[in-house]
Amino acid sequence: MLYPNHIKKDYNKFVSYKNRGMALEELLNVSNEYYREIDRAIIYKKPTPITISEVKYPNNSEKIITKAYFRTPSTLDYNGIYRGKYIDFDAKETKNRTAFPLANLHEHQYQHMKKVIEHGGISFLIIYMNGLFYYLDGKDIITFVENNTRKSIPYSFIQEHGKVIPQKIKPRLDYLKVLDTLYFEEV
Amino acid sequence: MLYPNHIKKDYNKFVSYKNRGMALEELLNVSNEYYREIDRAIIYKKPTPITISEVKYPNNSEKIITKAYFRTPSTLDYNGIYRGKYIDFDAKETKNRTAFPLANLHEHQYQHMKKVIEHGGISFLIIYMNGLFYYLDGKDIITFVENNTRKSIPYSFIQEHGKVIPQKIKPRLDYLKVLDTLYFEEV
Repeated sequence: MLYPNHIKKDYNKFVSYKNRGMALEELLNVSNEYYREIDRAIIYKKPTPITISEVKYPNNSEKIITKAYFRTPSTLDYNGIYRGKYIDFDAKETKNRTAFPLANLHEHQYQHMKKVIEHGGISFLIIYMNGLFYYLDGKDIITFVENNTRKSIPYSFIQEHGKVIPQKIKPRLDYLKVLDTLYFEEV
Repeated sequence: MLYPNHIKKDYNKFVSYKNRGMALEELLNVSNEYYREIDRAIIYKKPTPITISEVKYPNNSEKIITKAYFRTPSTLDYNGIYRGKYIDFDAKETKNRTAFPLANLHEHQYQHMKKVIEHGGISFLIIYMNGLFYYLDGKDIITFVENNTRKSIPYSFIQEHGKVIPQKIKPRLDYLKVLDTLYFEEV
């Protein structure tokens, strides 16, 4: 072994966290692309919200942003339409094995989720935790938050109220399958 | 007069164009904010799509984008939910007084519009032209494109098939009023 154990452990933790992070967004992007390809749903990830503060024009045809800042998003990252319904969700992950920290969901995002549901849309989180991808419906998240003072959702709650999202070759994460069972008569 | 006439004219054209451009996005942003405030609809402008190629960390808490490029959007700029329906639209303007050049709507955006309608959503353009804000429904745009080889939509078509959007103090552009008459029983 090249590294002493405690370094190796930290290194793995970092690498696997970063990989998971990339993987989750990537898995959803290819899944959404596939859904659009087979015309099942029109769902996109929103661009990263930034504030542009400096733009340069090195020549007539080029326009480069040379200074910009990341903004905290006030909505969820993914939205679109499925079976005529407005869909709005986000993907989160945690290394925590016993609970999902609600700090992962900004206050504005939580309020947005509530509003979407009140207006007749479907909102949820996809949570990667303990090696599985869980679908957790916005209604269950709201019920939890309104009846608890805890700052994290216990894994047991997610296991009980969430659904494990099927992983396939295409789509990689078939989260619409979960929506079929929850919101529509299955086709 | 400070400027010879032909320079002044060009200057005014530039200024008014830029102002109109800012104004249209700004008018829609404040209108959408108002709609959210009174809980009438949950509609947001998507962030500008960019490709980030360089990020710097001047200190532990700061993260600055130092190089990024604008990407051509493949969807429309605004989406959300109104009266339970998925809404997806864009705002365009033209200085052309006789026709709206279809070059303003990228091929991908046009295809996206078609898909949204096929999936049961509502899609449209808000076109600022000849001093008025027109609502032009996606279905009318598709009908025009499929039955014409022209590269622009004549103003007469917009006047006949579009609706003039009421301008108010709040909301500044009451485009949902047009949706009420077209898609819902009025409230």
